[in-house]
Amino acid sequence: MNILVLHGPNLNLLGTRETDVYGTVTLDKINGELESLARELSVSVTVHQSNGEGELVEWIQKAGGRYDALVINPGAYTHTSVALRDAVAGVGIPTIEVHLSNIYRREEFRQHSYIAGVAVGQISGFGADSYALGLRAAVAHLRAQQATAKK
Amino acid sequence: MNILVLHGPNLNLLGTRETDVYGTVTLDKINGELESLARELSVSVTVHQSNGEGELVEWIQKAGGRYDALVINPGAYTHTSVALRDAVAGVGIPTIEVHLSNIYRREEFRQHSYIAGVAVGQISGFGADSYALGLRAAVAHLRAQQATAKK
Amino acid sequence: MNILVLHGPNLNLLGTRETDVYGTVTLDKINGELESLARELSVSVTVHQSNGEGELVEWIQKAGGRYDALVINPGAYTHTSVALRDAVAGVGIPTIEVHLSNIYRREEFRQHSYIAGVAVGQISGFGADSYALGLRAAVAHLRAQQATAKK
Amino acid sequence: MNILVLHGPNLNLLGTRETDVYGTVTLDKINGELESLARELSVSVTVHQSNGEGELVEWIQKAGGRYDALVINPGAYTHTSVALRDAVAGVGIPTIEVHLSNIYRREEFRQHSYIAGVAVGQISGFGADSYALGLRAAVAHLRAQQATAKK
Amino acid sequence: MNILVLHGPNLNLLGTRETDVYGTVTLDKINGELESLARELSVSVTVHQSNGEGELVEWIQKAGGRYDALVINPGAYTHTSVALRDAVAGVGIPTIEVHLSNIYRREEFRQHSYIAGVAVGQISGFGADSYALGLRAAVAHLRAQQATAKK
Amino acid sequence: MNILVLHGPNLNLLGTRETDVYGTVTLDKINGELESLARELSVSVTVHQSNGEGELVEWIQKAGGRYDALVINPGAYTHTSVALRDAVAGVGIPTIEVHLSNIYRREEFRQHSYIAGVAVGQISGFGADSYALGLRAAVAHLRAQQATAKK
Amino acid sequence: MNILVLHGPNLNLLGTRETDVYGTVTLDKINGELESLARELSVSVTVHQSNGEGELVEWIQKAGGRYDALVINPGAYTHTSVALRDAVAGVGIPTIEVHLSNIYRREEFRQHSYIAGVAVGQISGFGADSYALGLRAAVAHLRAQQATAKK
Amino acid sequence: MNILVLHGPNLNLLGTRETDVYGTVTLDKINGELESLARELSVSVTVHQSNGEGELVEWIQKAGGRYDALVINPGAYTHTSVALRDAVAGVGIPTIEVHLSNIYRREEFRQHSYIAGVAVGQISGFGADSYALGLRAAVAHLRAQQATAKK
Amino acid sequence: MNILVLHGPNLNLLGTRETDVYGTVTLDKINGELESLARELSVSVTVHQSNGEGELVEWIQKAGGRYDALVINPGAYTHTSVALRDAVAGVGIPTIEVHLSNIYRREEFRQHSYIAGVAVGQISGFGADSYALGLRAAVAHLRAQQATAKK
Amino acid sequence: MNILVLHGPNLNLLGTRETDVYGTVTLDKINGELESLARELSVSVTVHQSNGEGELVEWIQKAGGRYDALVINPGAYTHTSVALRDAVAGVGIPTIEVHLSNIYRREEFRQHSYIAGVAVGQISGFGADSYALGLRAAVAHLRAQQATAKK
Amino acid sequence: MNILVLHGPNLNLLGTRETDVYGTVTLDKINGELESLARELSVSVTVHQSNGEGELVEWIQKAGGRYDALVINPGAYTHTSVALRDAVAGVGIPTIEVHLSNIYRREEFRQHSYIAGVAVGQISGFGADSYALGLRAAVAHLRAQQATAKK
Amino acid sequence: MNILVLHGPNLNLLGTRETDVYGTVTLDKINGELESLARELSVSVTVHQSNGEGELVEWIQKAGGRYDALVINPGAYTHTSVALRDAVAGVGIPTIEVHLSNIYRREEFRQHSYIAGVAVGQISGFGADSYALGLRAAVAHLRAQQATAKK
Repeated sequence: MNILVLHGPNLNLLGTRETDVYGTVTLDKINGELESLARELSVSVTVHQSNGEGELVEWIQKAGGRYDALVINPGAYTHTSVALRDAVAGVGIPTIEVHLSNIYRREEFRQHSYIAGVAVGQISGFGADSYALGLRAAVAHLRAQQATAKK
Repeated sequence: MNILVLHGPNLNLLGTRETDVYGTVTLDKINGELESLARELSVSVTVHQSNGEGELVEWIQKAGGRYDALVINPGAYTHTSVALRDAVAGVGIPTIEVHLSNIYRREEFRQHSYIAGVAVGQISGFGADSYALGLRAAVAHLRAQQATAKK
Repeated sequence: MNILVLHGPNLNLLGTRETDVYGTVTLDKINGELESLARELSVSVTVHQSNGEGELVEWIQKAGGRYDALVINPGAYTHTSVALRDAVAGVGIPTIEVHLSNIYRREEFRQHSYIAGVAVGQISGFGADSYALGLRAAVAHLRAQQATAKK
Repeated sequence: MNILVLHGPNLNLLGTRETDVYGTVTLDKINGELESLARELSVSVTVHQSNGEGELVEWIQKAGGRYDALVINPGAYTHTSVALRDAVAGVGIPTIEVHLSNIYRREEFRQHSYIAGVAVGQISGFGADSYALGLRAAVAHLRAQQATAKK
Repeated sequence: MNILVLHGPNLNLLGTRETDVYGTVTLDKINGELESLARELSVSVTVHQSNGEGELVEWIQKAGGRYDALVINPGAYTHTSVALRDAVAGVGIPTIEVHLSNIYRREEFRQHSYIAGVAVGQISGFGADSYALGLRAAVAHLRAQQATAKK
Repeated sequence: MNILVLHGPNLNLLGTRETDVYGTVTLDKINGELESLARELSVSVTVHQSNGEGELVEWIQKAGGRYDALVINPGAYTHTSVALRDAVAGVGIPTIEVHLSNIYRREEFRQHSYIAGVAVGQISGFGADSYALGLRAAVAHLRAQQATAKK
Repeated sequence: MNILVLHGPNLNLLGTRETDVYGTVTLDKINGELESLARELSVSVTVHQSNGEGELVEWIQKAGGRYDALVINPGAYTHTSVALRDAVAGVGIPTIEVHLSNIYRREEFRQHSYIAGVAVGQISGFGADSYALGLRAAVAHLRAQQATAKK
Repeated sequence: MNILVLHGPNLNLLGTRETDVYGTVTLDKINGELESLARELSVSVTVHQSNGEGELVEWIQKAGGRYDALVINPGAYTHTSVALRDAVAGVGIPTIEVHLSNIYRREEFRQHSYIAGVAVGQISGFGADSYALGLRAAVAHLRAQQATAKK
Repeated sequence: MNILVLHGPNLNLLGTRETDVYGTVTLDKINGELESLARELSVSVTVHQSNGEGELVEWIQKAGGRYDALVINPGAYTHTSVALRDAVAGVGIPTIEVHLSNIYRREEFRQHSYIAGVAVGQISGFGADSYALGLRAAVAHLRAQQATAKK
Repeated sequence: MNILVLHGPNLNLLGTRETDVYGTVTLDKINGELESLARELSVSVTVHQSNGEGELVEWIQKAGGRYDALVINPGAYTHTSVALRDAVAGVGIPTIEVHLSNIYRREEFRQHSYIAGVAVGQISGFGADSYALGLRAAVAHLRAQQATAKK
Repeated sequence: MNILVLHGPNLNLLGTRETDVYGTVTLDKINGELESLARELSVSVTVHQSNGEGELVEWIQKAGGRYDALVINPGAYTHTSVALRDAVAGVGIPTIEVHLSNIYRREEFRQHSYIAGVAVGQISGFGADSYALGLRAAVAHLRAQQATAKK
Repeated sequence: MNILVLHGPNLNLLGTRETDVYGTVTLDKINGELESLARELSVSVTVHQSNGEGELVEWIQKAGGRYDALVINPGAYTHTSVALRDAVAGVGIPTIEVHLSNIYRREEFRQHSYIAGVAVGQISGFGADSYALGLRAAVAHLRAQQATAKK
């Protein structure tokens, strides 16, 4: 079971800037914890970060056939990118949308997600834990699919 | 660590009706799984369901001082109840909002939550797993608070 | 053929208050007329009134398996209750929505119904006759279903 | 007691096209059933269909003095015609608005009626039965008026 | 002159929670002060609090004939309850709407009241004084009515 | 100087129905007064009324080359007909829009005119005088054009 | 019969600025023509211009008892002044609203008038002729009132 | 392969009026070119124009069974006619919507089409070429259908 | 304790015009009653009325340092004046907003106040009593501040 | 005559994913057919695809001077990219917007195009044929320009 | 080169009130700095402040012919005054709009300017520097005009 | 003092295309003038242009620690990019937003900026001078910060 984790724009700044909002945990630390949890859950994770919408689209496209699920924090593109939405819908692998902050407590324009409409589900507001919960959700979703398929 | 789990209106029908939408898992089964997970995580859970807005408000009020966190699926009241929001805000214990279905893939009027604005975070779309993820999120949140408090 | 008739909030005041708007017919009189019509149509009716959203939800839930159809005047909850909508959708028996006054000639906020989207149909504006027409509509609907089922 | 029944645009196609939406009952069959019901209720009905907004306006205008009530399914003009609304208001005879389908379960633009604001009431969603219920509603309304006038 | 005072949902928490927003005055203290003021004004007050919409509707209904005026802080139901509005309109006794906080300085969704449209007037933003002002307003309103009636 | 006067839908009912709203003046009387005023102003008027949108479009089209100006009360089509707007724009003769009632004191949906955007100007609210003022406005407009053209 | 004519803000610039939009006619010329027309119609006119909202309010207030009708071009205050509206409604004399340009062909924010809702009617788009038509409309309105009063 | 081409309101004015907007090509010329192209593509075309909404509805209704496809420029009715939409949906033959001008560069109210939701596709902005492209689109669509059917 | 009372535009007409809406009490009478109440409460009041937005702004500015609180009925400027809001916010003395009529039962455009967002609270709908309640609210607010300051 | 054809984001997935929506034709097949049609029309085509907004902007910029027209399917950027719109407007060569699916039958957010306002025209809904029609439209547009220029 | 600088309502309070928002710089200090900068740039400035909309309109009107440019901070009238907009448009001299605070970081109702649509440009958010930048912008604009005019 | 100047999408076309809108000044000329002004102000500037949203995000990220302020013309991304906004907020250096044209005189969709909410201020409408004013604003802002820090 291979799972792709994608971090969207500005998430590379994590832990070094706006620490009052996003905390002091760095992206490297989050990635490290995801790898630990992956081992614990006996799955494999691959992680990328990009600030470019087109580049994220291409990684999603390439996920088809290579990965069983996608855990994505689309960052600011959550609210503006129909292209990411189309890529997720097009590639057709189960996608879990995660957010560090609770987007429903922030500015009006952050309270709409183009991705949610094509995702399995959304996890929002638990800081770095959002990723861990997202990875668990992906694994649970895939195992439930396998269980159903076996019947 | 004591955690209150509240199920809102119509969730008592779970697994017996609209199984194409909500699956065949019953509320009893979900509650049983939550108790198992609670034992695994070394916490205690108490569970209630109600169809009445006022009754839910009262259970939330009483949670103050008795429980460390609240995991709530407010069902239809998610979209209409300012009273539940005020109860959550008033009682002041960390609250995790969960939904079985991905509310952002449903009717327009289900895509707004009055609770999200006063919750720690929201988990939406993972079926019965939403509750398990919500319980994990609550425990992680409380343990992070304890860790911070100790410093 | 058993039909449940539910009256929503404030309908117990009927005929005693705001008689310029709602007329002088009391709820008892309406119920009496419904029973007469039921006998004429060879069906049975059961009638309840409640001012509580949660209580109405529970009566609707209990209608499953016991009644063949529901005739409901949701009163003010027409415009605010997603919980009633979910109960109607969840219980899955044919539901006829009725209103004494023509809700489309009243305040803007009364011109939207959460129930209509899950009802068979809606009858609005014929005073006490709205109930009689609703009962006839329910019976005709059930008989058409039976006729189809026999084929 | 003479009652005019008007069918709006495209209703002449009934039963021959889009039978999945509107059923297989033809307009002739509906008209025949209305005439039977009229005899049963001891009233007389006259029926017309037109695809033209201006022609419908003229039939409504001519109904003044000749008919005691109007039962109208304005079809698509329900949602776009202020002229029909003005004709109904101008001619001043009691008007019952009927719809085959439940317009509140259809596209957003079909969920508003210009006629409802000047009609006695509206019946929506009972297929061909909507007309029969509309005729009954008209007769009940006229008889109630007569009863009041006699006092 | 008998006046009913109703407190809506979550007002029982007053003075014990969110004291930064609502102050440290408890509901008991407010009720005590209202009774003192009532004696000073030579009127009688009866006070209830409920978290349930249906229960509030019933208290309002029962106020008819028993009380001369109603002073109500509908709390969160201010913004969502058409049923309370209908109860106030149905029972027909003069109603004064009061709020502890200035609802026009709070979230957008708190800046609309369903009750205001059927109330004599509204008093908002003076903390516990809002109730005292509301009681004075009710008495002044009733005495002006009596003065007019005597003419 | 030849001027075409067009009356839209339902204006043939004038003076015989809804006399509380539109007064008791009949369309014939208005037309007679327009002819008198036309003689006084030394111009010629031709008058038509139609309930059909298509027929009004055709009269407007035919006005090109035959008439120097158009005075039109589009009635209900004011608010719904882009086709009338296009006909007025297409035929290119100066057009004066008139209304018996002040449309800005009526229902929200009557407060927008598709014609105003292609008319010289609009006169609204003076009863039968609106037509006389409209004819004067047309004549003044044409004479000002002639004066400019002569320079 | 005494009629007050009020010109709102910036109308003193007329004929000297933005002549492409408003033409080269000056306010003095318009006032002169209004006086000629007044003599022809055997009425008396008084004319004022002000750039101040408060000053216009005061002239309208003082018109009560002194003038039989008001012809007003509220200029920019048309779209923003509730105070002018209240003054017109308060003073209670028949008011005719006029505009030089057709406000319905201009910017969106100019297409709403606070005055129209309390005016007898509105005349818009005929340049300086709008005033003459407005004066005629006022006189016709007053004479019709007198005729009715004599009956 | 028989194809019906319908021109909506005011298109009979083409080439004689508003030539700056719509060019100098007349409707006859467009029809002639469509016939040439039809011969080139070995199909047959029939052409009608009407200013009446009802008449267009009837031509569309009659197209059922007689024509294989419909190419329609609904003109102003594009933006206001639900009746045309229903006729197209009811008759069920493939429909291509064409516009001379690019409706998305024009007034806001021209940027919505009721027809597009039931058409195969839309072609907008290529002047008289829009019709030729529409005819080609219709033929290609029908040939693709035939190819699929043969399989 | 010195309190400034400001009356906005058209309030000088009170009691002489639109008496069906605003009653027959004159502004002088209201001012006299305020002075009596002030003596009873052992405070001093100063009263002004103005129809000019700029003049009201200046009185508010000058209130700084001279008065302890402001009771203002901003009349029509309630709904349109950001300048009054800024003056109230700028001068920083506690401000009580009062209205004779219940603004939430009036036209849509009167249901928003620019002042409420910077006022202590709002009292609306009690006729002349609104001022007396406003004065009491101001005094209570100031005394509560003094009590707090002493601690 | 050189024509640039640009395919936007996710169009590289064509024919391999979501084949129920977009069919089984691949982008290579479409490009091949465009080249055949180009030869038939005696023009030359160059084709590119990109998932990056910035990259598409640069190809459009470079089209100036090198290509006579642009045929573009902007994919998801249709609905979100002002930068593409500005590039098209900036480079100034005739641009034809094409879409495989009928965007007016899809989600609300897909029914608005930023490109349409600066394009010659739009072709939507004909599958792979949309491109062929777009190429024909481009050639016809250029030939009409040449014909005009020669005069 | 003479430049008029106008300060709108409440700017006379600058530096003495709400210093947390607007800083401690007084209007006199700003005016002094503008005069220094004017000398440095070899232009002349005249400065006024008013709280009255009508008075500001009149100063703008009088600027025509006397001043080469206008630098204006319309304060609260920015968001509500069409009269100021019309005065600026009417007088036709280049106008620079300046704001102390960044209006796009403030309340929703402050994020729209009626002046911007008729101004050369807008400078917002640089505190007292906004005026200096505005004066520089005015001078640069006038010198560019002169340079163009010389060619 | 080092200042980064960023030019967004399509600004590389400046002076060569759409010269009627943006003038004939090229980006090179603007950059040259900025360098001159920088020398005059004794600061250093670095300049980049990019058409890619992701690339702009990265330059902004890298500005942290290297530059003291950012002057940015985000071009079309002003209106669509939450990612740029987040980058500006994340990197935390003072940012000045500039626009060549007055965006408040352009299309509706250009009248909203995602950047303004996180910028120090905005300068819009002065052509190439907007950049010079922006550079001056940045320097003044930094010097004021230094002055404050020294205290």
